[in-house]
Amino acid sequence: TRQMTHTTDREIVVRTTLRELVVYLVFLIILCILTFGMTSPTMYYYTKVLSELFLDTPYPDTRNTFRGSTQVMDFWRFVEGPMVDGLYWDAWYDHARTSVNKHEQNILYENRMLGVPRMRQLRVRDDSCNVHETFAGAINKCYSVYSESIEDKTSFGPRNGTAWNYYSQSELKSQSVWGMISTYSGAGSYVDLSHSRNATIEILSSLRRNLWIGRGTRAVFIDFTVYNANINLFCVIRLIFEFPATGGMIPSSSFRTVKLLRYVTPFDYFVMACEWIFAFFVLYYIVEEVLEVRKMKCAYFKSVWNILDILVIGIATLCIAFSVYRTNSVDDKLESLLKDGVQYANFEQLGFYQTQFNSAVAMCVFFAWIKLFKYISFNKTMTQLSSTLSRCAKDVMGFAIMFFIVFFAFAQLGYLLFGTQVRDFSSFGNATFTLLRTILGDFNFHEIEAANRVLGPIFFLAYVFFVFFVLMNMFLAIINDTYSEVKNEISAQKNEFEIADYFKRGYNN
Amino acid sequence: TRQMTHTTDREIVVRTTLRELVVYLVFLIILCILTFGMTSPTMYYYTKVLSELFLDTPYPDTRNTFRGSTQVMDFWRFVEGPMVDGLYWDAWYDHARTSVNKHEQNILYENRMLGVPRMRQLRVRDDSCNVHETFAGAINKCYSVYSESIEDKTSFGPRNGTAWNYYSQSELKSQSVWGMISTYSGAGSYVDLSHSRNATIEILSSLRRNLWIGRGTRAVFIDFTVYNANINLFCVIRLIFEFPATGGMIPSSSFRTVKLLRYVTPFDYFVMACEWIFAFFVLYYIVEEVLEVRKMKCAYFKSVWNILDILVIGIATLCIAFSVYRTNSVDDKLESLLKDGVQYANFEQLGFYQTQFNSAVAMCVFFAWIKLFKYISFNKTMTQLSSTLSRCAKDVMGFAIMFFIVFFAFAQLGYLLFGTQVRDFSSFGNATFTLLRTILGDFNFHEIEAANRVLGPIFFLAYVFFVFFVLMNMFLAIINDTYSEVKNEISAQKNEFEIADYFKRGYNN
Amino acid sequence: TRQMTHTTDREIVVRTTLRELVVYLVFLIILCILTFGMTSPTMYYYTKVLSELFLDTPYPDTRNTFRGSTQVMDFWRFVEGPMVDGLYWDAWYDHARTSVNKHEQNILYENRMLGVPRMRQLRVRDDSCNVHETFAGAINKCYSVYSESIEDKTSFGPRNGTAWNYYSQSELKSQSVWGMISTYSGAGSYVDLSHSRNATIEILSSLRRNLWIGRGTRAVFIDFTVYNANINLFCVIRLIFEFPATGGMIPSSSFRTVKLLRYVTPFDYFVMACEWIFAFFVLYYIVEEVLEVRKMKCAYFKSVWNILDILVIGIATLCIAFSVYRTNSVDDKLESLLKDGVQYANFEQLGFYQTQFNSAVAMCVFFAWIKLFKYISFNKTMTQLSSTLSRCAKDVMGFAIMFFIVFFAFAQLGYLLFGTQVRDFSSFGNATFTLLRTILGDFNFHEIEAANRVLGPIFFLAYVFFVFFVLMNMFLAIINDTYSEVKNEISAQKNEFEIADYFKRGYNN
Amino acid sequence: TRQMTHTTDREIVVRTTLRELVVYLVFLIILCILTFGMTSPTMYYYTKVLSELFLDTPYPDTRNTFRGSTQVMDFWRFVEGPMVDGLYWDAWYDHARTSVNKHEQNILYENRMLGVPRMRQLRVRDDSCNVHETFAGAINKCYSVYSESIEDKTSFGPRNGTAWNYYSQSELKSQSVWGMISTYSGAGSYVDLSHSRNATIEILSSLRRNLWIGRGTRAVFIDFTVYNANINLFCVIRLIFEFPATGGMIPSSSFRTVKLLRYVTPFDYFVMACEWIFAFFVLYYIVEEVLEVRKMKCAYFKSVWNILDILVIGIATLCIAFSVYRTNSVDDKLESLLKDGVQYANFEQLGFYQTQFNSAVAMCVFFAWIKLFKYISFNKTMTQLSSTLSRCAKDVMGFAIMFFIVFFAFAQLGYLLFGTQVRDFSSFGNATFTLLRTILGDFNFHEIEAANRVLGPIFFLAYVFFVFFVLMNMFLAIINDTYSEVKNEISAQKNEFEIADYFKRGYNN
Ligand SMILES: [Ca+2]
Repeated sequence: TRQMTHTTDREIVVRTTLRELVVYLVFLIILCILTFGMTSPTMYYYTKVLSELFLDTPYPDTRNTFRGSTQVMDFWRFVEGPMVDGLYWDAWYDHARTSVNKHEQNILYENRMLGVPRMRQLRVRDDSCNVHETFAGAINKCYSVYSESIEDKTSFGPRNGTAWNYYSQSELKSQSVWGMISTYSGAGSYVDLSHSRNATIEILSSLRRNLWIGRGTRAVFIDFTVYNANINLFCVIRLIFEFPATGGMIPSSSFRTVKLLRYVTPFDYFVMACEWIFAFFVLYYIVEEVLEVRKMKCAYFKSVWNILDILVIGIATLCIAFSVYRTNSVDDKLESLLKDGVQYANFEQLGFYQTQFNSAVAMCVFFAWIKLFKYISFNKTMTQLSSTLSRCAKDVMGFAIMFFIVFFAFAQLGYLLFGTQVRDFSSFGNATFTLLRTILGDFNFHEIEAANRVLGPIFFLAYVFFVFFVLMNMFLAIINDTYSEVKNEISAQKNEFEIADYFKRGYNN
Repeated sequence: TRQMTHTTDREIVVRTTLRELVVYLVFLIILCILTFGMTSPTMYYYTKVLSELFLDTPYPDTRNTFRGSTQVMDFWRFVEGPMVDGLYWDAWYDHARTSVNKHEQNILYENRMLGVPRMRQLRVRDDSCNVHETFAGAINKCYSVYSESIEDKTSFGPRNGTAWNYYSQSELKSQSVWGMISTYSGAGSYVDLSHSRNATIEILSSLRRNLWIGRGTRAVFIDFTVYNANINLFCVIRLIFEFPATGGMIPSSSFRTVKLLRYVTPFDYFVMACEWIFAFFVLYYIVEEVLEVRKMKCAYFKSVWNILDILVIGIATLCIAFSVYRTNSVDDKLESLLKDGVQYANFEQLGFYQTQFNSAVAMCVFFAWIKLFKYISFNKTMTQLSSTLSRCAKDVMGFAIMFFIVFFAFAQLGYLLFGTQVRDFSSFGNATFTLLRTILGDFNFHEIEAANRVLGPIFFLAYVFFVFFVLMNMFLAIINDTYSEVKNEISAQKNEFEIADYFKRGYNN
Repeated sequence: TRQMTHTTDREIVVRTTLRELVVYLVFLIILCILTFGMTSPTMYYYTKVLSELFLDTPYPDTRNTFRGSTQVMDFWRFVEGPMVDGLYWDAWYDHARTSVNKHEQNILYENRMLGVPRMRQLRVRDDSCNVHETFAGAINKCYSVYSESIEDKTSFGPRNGTAWNYYSQSELKSQSVWGMISTYSGAGSYVDLSHSRNATIEILSSLRRNLWIGRGTRAVFIDFTVYNANINLFCVIRLIFEFPATGGMIPSSSFRTVKLLRYVTPFDYFVMACEWIFAFFVLYYIVEEVLEVRKMKCAYFKSVWNILDILVIGIATLCIAFSVYRTNSVDDKLESLLKDGVQYANFEQLGFYQTQFNSAVAMCVFFAWIKLFKYISFNKTMTQLSSTLSRCAKDVMGFAIMFFIVFFAFAQLGYLLFGTQVRDFSSFGNATFTLLRTILGDFNFHEIEAANRVLGPIFFLAYVFFVFFVLMNMFLAIINDTYSEVKNEISAQKNEFEIADYFKRGYNN
Repeated sequence: TRQMTHTTDREIVVRTTLRELVVYLVFLIILCILTFGMTSPTMYYYTKVLSELFLDTPYPDTRNTFRGSTQVMDFWRFVEGPMVDGLYWDAWYDHARTSVNKHEQNILYENRMLGVPRMRQLRVRDDSCNVHETFAGAINKCYSVYSESIEDKTSFGPRNGTAWNYYSQSELKSQSVWGMISTYSGAGSYVDLSHSRNATIEILSSLRRNLWIGRGTRAVFIDFTVYNANINLFCVIRLIFEFPATGGMIPSSSFRTVKLLRYVTPFDYFVMACEWIFAFFVLYYIVEEVLEVRKMKCAYFKSVWNILDILVIGIATLCIAFSVYRTNSVDDKLESLLKDGVQYANFEQLGFYQTQFNSAVAMCVFFAWIKLFKYISFNKTMTQLSSTLSRCAKDVMGFAIMFFIVFFAFAQLGYLLFGTQVRDFSSFGNATFTLLRTILGDFNFHEIEAANRVLGPIFFLAYVFFVFFVLMNMFLAIINDTYSEVKNEISAQKNEFEIADYFKRGYNN
């Protein structure tokens, strides 16, 4: 009878697990609908056509493009060439170039520019760094690497207009920007371009004539936002030109394709319904977890599954909150914009947070999938696999310490040896990922060899031998060996009551 | 004596198996002759020269090509430049440009254009989508993503001629087309070009003058067919220009090189003979399988070999049927074409089905090869290998579930995180294959990093660690372990009567 | 005492083996000196500068190059542009272009052209293929794919001069040529260019005016040879233009950098000495092997080491013979050339055989290295490794059959499915190597996907799963398992007398 | 009690080890601060902008760049185009090209050129090689491959000025240079350019008019140094043009970004403090090791850890010595330079040694990391892993011999077969690394195939089969098997007193 009681107990456990699993699956499906409803392949095409328009159009004289720009001159080539051509579509494509109705001028004929673009620059002071005493006589101005504390806040050039004066971040309602070589504040001198091609060309020409970009300029940002009504998507565009202290220019860009107006088509309303269901689910799980915490106290936080629960619920709650905020915020902004069309459309913040929101949702659904493993240990084969993983965890950890000491020693060596010559080793982080990619077979031997003709090949040989051959194979040996052990043990065990049995019994009754 | 009887029984089995094998090998050889006779490396060169002619010739002004086209203007650059130059070869290459005899004008001097090319466009209505209320005043026309239900069926522009009116799919005897971003119906407005270069230039100029491509245009197709008598091959060419709702243009193309006139050279007649033999074989196997089904009833469908038999026979029968249809159809079409040279040569359907036919034959021969494994289990080593495979199947299945949950969780995460920026993650399907390719070492880390500088590297690291290192090695451990087991068992077994013994005995007698 | 006798016997065996090994090592070192003396990294630079000069110089109008040529026009662009500029260096680089002394005009200022270049073309008859009856009226000329039997041997064009008449292979003292799509005979119409730039331009202009390249032209060859006295190397250059029956043009080239005058510098004479020593070694080994054959009879041919011996000796003998012939032949040819500078310098045959000679020597030294394994089994670890290899040979063979059926089934499927679109699958051989490269991680998924959007990804998935994951891992399992077995057995054995012991004993005495 | 004593003994050992470890960790951290303080990602950007400025700017006429240069003409195109434009920045970017203050003319507006650039050439004599007797009449001048002994020391051309006379290495205070195809002495004819654009153009024009580059020219070097005060970095630039004996030109370059003035910013002074601490550490370890040597005598040198100690200390001492020398040397040089601005700024030697210094420090820190393993064997898992490595060392060695015989046989075969055609096989060293990269999946099959259409694919197939499949898998088998053995043994052992226990006990007391 003890055996019987035991079986009945297990049956209850199994039944509860099954119920939980079904509820969880519904939750997961709703979540998947949400996320897949949130995005679509069209978004990629939208990013693509806009980025190709601005980044890949060649300059008329040098045939260079935004992406290939390296010098100050290229900045002017870009803004006076591809940028103006990309922003103002005032004629059709026929030979006579029939003009487009003023009210209908759209980028690529389909994308309405919201407000006007803004160009902003950040400068540093000419005494922002120490000149070594030897050069004291020869060099009297020195413009350091950008940092917020050494921004030049004085007026310059003609000193008239917004372009030649400094405004603080709060005056501009702007945000700090993460560039390729620094993080820049939202302050600086700015100029708003016009809705008309000719006026814009005039503004740009005046800036160039008065040498707007000087030795102290460390970055220029061009910001604007376009809206495509056909597919109801916004693209928040920022073009960044960094002028490092080394001379030259480093261009970068961000094209944030976001769906700020969420509910327009019938399908959008179906997604809305799912969002409500999702919100109720989150509420349900919050209550459940709170009850569990009360019951289990500290023990609750020892299970990795519970941590995962908290993570999923936390992220979900944040996302719901942002969703509400976004809806209100967008409407306000658009109304004011459409009233006064010539102001700058500041979507920087909204675009940034919408992207973070998308990432958060993505991670939420990823963790939700991973949690599925909690319910999956009902099967013997599964148990075998998961106990192999947990069994070899200790050995793998020991191995990992050994591996990472060698790995990071190589990364540091690579960084110090090739860092000044090879992009893939130009920082410690880059060097780490470069060595990781080498294991997968993605590397550039010729670059390493060119950087150091003696130590390059030796470095490569040593790395491949130790890390790829010796350590990787040892890793394999650990898993292989543990698997054999676990399998032997499990096949020796008696079969426990399994979910499969539960179903079989259901059939028989 | 029981042992003896047993041996005699097995001998009969072996003898039957051998006879079957020999017949099957003959069948396989005939099938291989058929397929290798059907195709030749020349076909690749033919596709290559024609696609290079149209897709890689640079436009005179921008040096861009068809493949690199991204804007509406590029459509006109293409049709007025490389297309006209590619279609009309009315002069030789000497400096004086001696004109070619009218009757002998061939593309690349060798390829006769059949009939005239047709240009067709599909448009959507200007009220085909909902504009959000905020933009109600600012935006009054809205052209949605293409779908058949919102096609614009009204006349437009000058409203005269086929170019400015709408014709249904049945009127045009056309087919739906699978483009890069949608599947398009066979309807729309069309214009047939001319056999003369000047007339074609005149037609194109008129279209451009009257703004044929408008905001509602979603796709333009250019269709024509060329025939090369030297090698007796047709090439059914379709150039597709998609104008997505995002703005811009996405070009694609299909060059179907097909052998529609099958029997011309003596070798063709040898292949014809093989085709007859093949038909008889198929008939023979149909009869055999029908008999087997009768005898075994439901049990028949439980063997994977029998399913394979049905598959091979089914595909073969379909192919034979199409072969007969094709022969008649082509002759009809060509006769009418050669009578009236200025009509559009509609080979769309024939080209499409001929390609499907080739694919079907290819799969038929693939399955036929796989079936060879049925006869191959006569050898001890083979048995060892195949029973390793079947033994570890259950473990591999369990592992596969685990693997695919993690794998698809990563694919979805990648799609949501990088989908708007990176082509390789622009849809869930793409993301799946991108992650599969990463396992083989084909990936682009810099793109992922550029799309998201924080989550990109973390995603990559996590994926490589879990999927590449942990899961792949575990997979290896499963197979490795099972192999050891099977080998031990088999080496413990007594040797059964093998085919090898049969042959040996044959020698001894 | 029996033990002692045994030890003494083994000692003798070891001593003999050691003596053999030392002699063999001397032989190997001599062979290595020979081969490394025969070639040098300079040869690569020589090939590089010459091929860049002719193949990578852009045409003045289209900026296309030889390598990117695809049409008949490109042939004329090449010969009238980069070829003429590459062959005739009659001015220095200063702005006034000071002319170079007539006697010193060298390609790239350093390379003397020997004799004059020859241009030769091959044509096929205009009735060389069957036109299908349907096209009988429309198409009356048909030029088939090249084969020697359908060469057009009639005169054409102006019918005067060698350019417009046909000469047989023996009249031209030429050889057949292996092109990209056919193997061509050495016959055809030819024209020898001049030593003067203007005369050559005149000849080419006349050919173009009279339409030298016609629809029947299947290939044009341009042959010339240059000699660089600084480094004493010849480069036998052949540029091939194939005009396939599909239309268009396929360019290819061969740059054979060879050292035809072997003995000039002091180091050359050292190599010569080595060659004599090598010849004596070969003689010695021939004698030894003949003695062995006599003694062992048929048993001799059962050892794989003996086969290797025969191979090495055979190749070596052939090489020596060619070496003698080459020395005489070159001197004769050069003498006649330098007497009469305006004839065509026919180095085709000599260049071809010298390249074959180099390959033969390369293989000879490779096999000689492999033979070293014969002497290497004196060590326990080595025995362990080599017996693992020989033990698992049977299993690997069984596995290989299974593997290759699946592998070739995939190769055939890939060829039939993607052959008309993708270069890597354009023939069965290409498909085989493409699939092999896929295992190593070198593949182009996007091309396969573009060729067939449905079956492409399925094909790829199936291939990677079966071949890469299942079969490769099984292969690993076989070796792994066998190694464990062998190791256990060997560690159970008693230690035999080893070479290491021999040396140790030597020290002790 | 014996057990107790034993435990106490071990406790002392553990305590000593721990103390040593802590001291060592402090040393390691100081060393890491030093090295990371020495370099920064800015250095890569600096190298990048300068190398792009000179190497990637296209020539006005051919659109070719420095990197793509192949002919003598390209040298003149470079020096008269991108070089002059890159060196002299005398105007701003506005349309009127406002001139820059003479005192402030900087490369890329930020980089001060130190002194003036120097152009130097090396020539060989016209009788420097033997012409074969056959060509004795036809070829009378012969310029061999460069070697120091055949330098042409005579005057040439107009024979006036430094450009047309020969100066020895000591006269020029120069160093020998390691180019792509030779190592060149520091001698030759030179010309110092000017600080003014026009004067430089005049000098270059005169050189070209008088044919400065002749057939005997083997190399031209352009040397100059720039200093960026913003980031306090020097870049020592050398552009090398090699004119090999084959004709043509091979360009290469070296951009050494070095921090010669070490102590400018406050952070620099923190690093300085660390350097002092580091020096004391080195002193401490020197003393310790000397004591150890005295105590242990010869036995000291048998431990690999002691060898490592000597290596680390030796490199560190050298670095400290150089550091002192550098500081003095730079100050002297800069002072004299800033007094007389028109002399050549010879930073060749200083740049070279500073780079060597950086490499030495990098290796020092690498070895220091590796030494960490000495202290890491306190853990059972670690012991297991490290004894696996040491146990299988013998087998791996045996295997390695086998592997390398096959591997080098393939490398030699590849070099001999493809060396004249394929860059990756152009020398034995290249061939070795190419084959190594093939194992990791980085190879170019098409190049091998193009070089030899028959033997190329066979070579590839054989290599992949033997090395990749057979040998690699065997390597894996060795490690796998050894790991199993070691694990079994260790799990059978009793647990020794471990560091972990030490800590646990500490908690309990
Ligand atoms: Ca790879």
